Amino acid sequence: MRISKLVGERTKTAPSDAVIKSHSLMIRAGYIKLVANGIWSLAMPAKRIARKIENIIREEMDALDGQECSFPVVMPRELWEESGRYTSIGDEMVRFKDRNARDMVLGMTHEEAAVQFARDAVNSYQQLPFMIYQIQTKFRDEGRPRGGLIRVREFTMKDAYSFHMTQEDLEAYYKRAYDAYDRIFRRIGMKNFIAVTSDSGMMGGRISHEFMLLTPIGEDSIVICPKCGLKANMEVATAANENYPAEEAKKAEEVYTGSAKEIAEVTKYLGDVSAERTIKAVCYNIKGDSVHTVVAFIRGDLEVNEAKLKKVLQAEVVPAALSDGTLTAGNIGPVGLPEKNIIVVYDKSLRGAVNMVTGANKPEYHIKNVCEGRDFVISESFDIAKVKPGQKCPVCGAELTVENGIEIGNIFQLGTKYTESMGMTVLNAEGKAVNPIMGCYGIGVGRAIASIAEESADEKGLNWPMSVAPWHVYLCVIRPDDERVRAKAEELYAELEKRGVEVLMDDRAQSAGFKFADCDLMGIPLRLVVSPRALERDEAEIKIRSTGEIITCPYSECADRIEEMKDSMTIKV
Amino acid sequence: MRISKLVGERTKTAPSDAVIKSHSLMIRAGYIKLVANGIWSLAMPAKRIARKIENIIREEMDALDGQECSFPVVMPRELWEESGRYTSIGDEMVRFKDRNARDMVLGMTHEEAAVQFARDAVNSYQQLPFMIYQIQTKFRDEGRPRGGLIRVREFTMKDAYSFHMTQEDLEAYYKRAYDAYDRIFRRIGMKNFIAVTSDSGMMGGRISHEFMLLTPIGEDSIVICPKCGLKANMEVATAANENYPAEEAKKAEEVYTGSAKEIAEVTKYLGDVSAERTIKAVCYNIKGDSVHTVVAFIRGDLEVNEAKLKKVLQAEVVPAALSDGTLTAGNIGPVGLPEKNIIVVYDKSLRGAVNMVTGANKPEYHIKNVCEGRDFVISESFDIAKVKPGQKCPVCGAELTVENGIEIGNIFQLGTKYTESMGMTVLNAEGKAVNPIMGCYGIGVGRAIASIAEESADEKGLNWPMSVAPWHVYLCVIRPDDERVRAKAEELYAELEKRGVEVLMDDRAQSAGFKFADCDLMGIPLRLVVSPRALERDEAEIKIRSTGEIITCPYSECADRIEEMKDSMTIKV
Repeated sequence: MRISKLVGERTKTAPSDAVIKSHSLMIRAGYIKLVANGIWSLAMPAKRIARKIENIIREEMDALDGQECSFPVVMPRELWEESGRYTSIGDEMVRFKDRNARDMVLGMTHEEAAVQFARDAVNSYQQLPFMIYQIQTKFRDEGRPRGGLIRVREFTMKDAYSFHMTQEDLEAYYKRAYDAYDRIFRRIGMKNFIAVTSDSGMMGGRISHEFMLLTPIGEDSIVICPKCGLKANMEVATAANENYPAEEAKKAEEVYTGSAKEIAEVTKYLGDVSAERTIKAVCYNIKGDSVHTVVAFIRGDLEVNEAKLKKVLQAEVVPAALSDGTLTAGNIGPVGLPEKNIIVVYDKSLRGAVNMVTGANKPEYHIKNVCEGRDFVISESFDIAKVKPGQKCPVCGAELTVENGIEIGNIFQLGTKYTESMGMTVLNAEGKAVNPIMGCYGIGVGRAIASIAEESADEKGLNWPMSVAPWHVYLCVIRPDDERVRAKAEELYAELEKRGVEVLMDDRAQSAGFKFADCDLMGIPLRLVVSPRALERDEAEIKIRSTGEIITCPYSECADRIEEMKDSMTIKV
Repeated sequence: MRISKLVGERTKTAPSDAVIKSHSLMIRAGYIKLVANGIWSLAMPAKRIARKIENIIREEMDALDGQECSFPVVMPRELWEESGRYTSIGDEMVRFKDRNARDMVLGMTHEEAAVQFARDAVNSYQQLPFMIYQIQTKFRDEGRPRGGLIRVREFTMKDAYSFHMTQEDLEAYYKRAYDAYDRIFRRIGMKNFIAVTSDSGMMGGRISHEFMLLTPIGEDSIVICPKCGLKANMEVATAANENYPAEEAKKAEEVYTGSAKEIAEVTKYLGDVSAERTIKAVCYNIKGDSVHTVVAFIRGDLEVNEAKLKKVLQAEVVPAALSDGTLTAGNIGPVGLPEKNIIVVYDKSLRGAVNMVTGANKPEYHIKNVCEGRDFVISESFDIAKVKPGQKCPVCGAELTVENGIEIGNIFQLGTKYTESMGMTVLNAEGKAVNPIMGCYGIGVGRAIASIAEESADEKGLNWPMSVAPWHVYLCVIRPDDERVRAKAEELYAELEKRGVEVLMDDRAQSAGFKFADCDLMGIPLRLVVSPRALERDEAEIKIRSTGEIITCPYSECADRIEEMKDSMTIKV
């Protein structure tokens, strides 16, 4: 390919709304073009990266005995009603009526389609296990698209579905899929990624893992135990129980706290109490329930994890307005709390709490020395807290750390949620109809591109790993008006392409500096220069983008050297 | 791949609504699965065929210097308003509101997206010409999906867009694209296809060609001159003008024709007149115009071509109801026709008409011996007729034939319709901003699969050309319980796969006849049998699906033979 014909302008200035590196650089290098909020066109270089990632994924899926299929983007309402998700999924699923006024949806995942496809085609346990997958377009009407290809509405995804007769068989396959994911991310050049246990959310099922690229720009928080290796998404992570000091219970007394409402204000006002010795109240409304208010009580230094709270309540929650005056916002406490239409949820951090400060349920007052079991009683408590760095690992007791990550893939043990609801059965060895047990396995291709970009880019630009780079070599032709230079460049171009080395040739009438900057910005792994001076000395200069290392050799050897470097720089696992 | 694990049941009975061969066989062979009207899932074998076709298309597009990109399925209304097509395209475009109540559409073609992508990225004539393309999902809310993958609502399409500075440059490129299309269809194994000039319809532009597979099940009619090679879609085909016999004009007179209204009824009633000597009136309403009625007059043996009529009127038309009593349905004629709110369109076949029979514009009467120029005057006539077999070629005068075809691809010279309406300009050599001239080029992948199936299938089943077959060889293992048979089969399977020969192995505990029938139904080009008897004689049997020819050789040679046959049976162009 010649850069002079490549559609996609390279610019020095990034759009002002591009706050993360990969977003800004992929626009500046002409890789992506915004069409609508969260919807992008990919230019040729980005499409080439996508295809290379897809091919690596395909190889690994085929090695798992996967059968590549294709399920539709547009599906009928009836299919999603079978699983119950037509109503359980909210605004993120696009719904529309077709020309015959039939309700249709845009697929954001394809469990329903996979089961509909397989349920008539498979009848016997002898046909199991099997796995079907596709690499295809999905649409999720994401509320907050951001970060270029990091979080979009339309995306290409590999989604795979496996079917098993027993939980043991699923678990054995799940382990193989886990290993395949590890290989995929290594092969496409990701470095700092981990697998964490996660919440399976709307997918159903119990055991699931997310593969996370650790990066400061990640929106997910991951709890990690540096000692025993425990890793979990904040949504499900738990810290070890902590005991309160063995103190004598003091006499409870109301204290004036004026306008102090937040925990930090109250501890500052009182002066002699730490956040750990306060009880925080966080109020929520349940979506679709205008009557009740949920009051979550938690130790003052901790935050409520809404994902966990949702699970406890089995419902969606939103922060409460507290406009009716029943509760005294900022002064709510478990002692003397109004009971009517109030649902109380205690975090386990409050079990056995002694001598705590908490709201007095009246304006401008808190109560000191409140003790659980004496002043209020927790009959049932839940884990609804976000883990804080420094809390203890529930497995080994070491101090936990919290890091940010981007989800780059996920695997789920779905169980029989879909095969039961959609009536898929096969005959087992005894001739009895049973519901197969499913697993599902997803990777977003666009997010993988952006994540690789984010991890590998430097101040000069993008910096693609060899295995996914749009081209292997950037052939910089300095003074293409020089006949010998042009002839040598064309000869090298042809020779390299013949060897399967992909070349982006820059034969524009521009300065060397201009071309080098474009090469760095685009992030092509190798740069080969042909210039009058280099030709005269017979010194081909090959620069490695990632290390900055420069290798020189006679021009007669440079195709060999580049072919070698292409191979040695391609990650093998 | 082992057929025992392949998801997709093969059955003897086709669904009752499958009236065409490819539809019925692709369901029976487990290739496709209906999800909703015109929406299909593809099983592994169909997906493999799709990918092979896509790869051949990609090679040919890359050879045309195409840049593979990716444009979105979901696009914002504003983009389609720029070109004017948000309103000009009807029900076949899906429209919906996203979660923020923004109007979105599903892409059925991507001229708008291609121009939006290119207009900021390209500034100078030096960057032209270029071509960008994608292979991607589209949705067209087709009123009458039919025939399996022949006419669907969701489909994968290769769509390409080229941009040029001059009409000459576009024409030169258009010729290259035409040749590439010819190569593509030959390489994927189509035989009886032709290119015809066509109507560019909603695409805009003037010159266009459709590639048509000639087949009795085709819904398009193609006019062909067997002598000079003229080929045109019925929508645009023209026959040579025909003269009326040099007769003396007789006296016009009203005749009673009772309830005879259709031309056939009138000629039968009168007895002494042929359809060629009658004038037919066909009435239409213009969509969105409740006031006027269009009366199209045409020679009685011809039919009105609505595509041509639409072009004349520059509007959509629907058959008229004639409920207001102004016109006397079945007795309408050009003499004494009411004028109020009537738009008359004369076909050129009526120029110079003499002694014709036509409606008298009153119930139960026609008029005989009506002459154009005397009884009514044609000031302007148009070609609004469908060509009939036997009419004369306008180029060479030979008799035209009419055949049925399926459109398998199309190429258009778009001109500046989109670059003008969407404000795409580049600076020409004189520094002046001009609108590039576009071409566009489409091929539907699913329709290609179905068309190949339709053309090549026989009474036993599908019959894939080697270049697109899901697997090259069907390895039939007869008596897989025999240890030597199984060992030899596994050895051959491994050996063939190593050589790049794709094998579908049938090692099920079934009879030879059962397996042969599945092999024929699935249409795998070669069949290799391993059986106890064949092993004993050391006689490997290789059967060619398309010819029925059987070749025998020692087992030690059969991998070589199959590899050779795979290569020689792959069409090269």
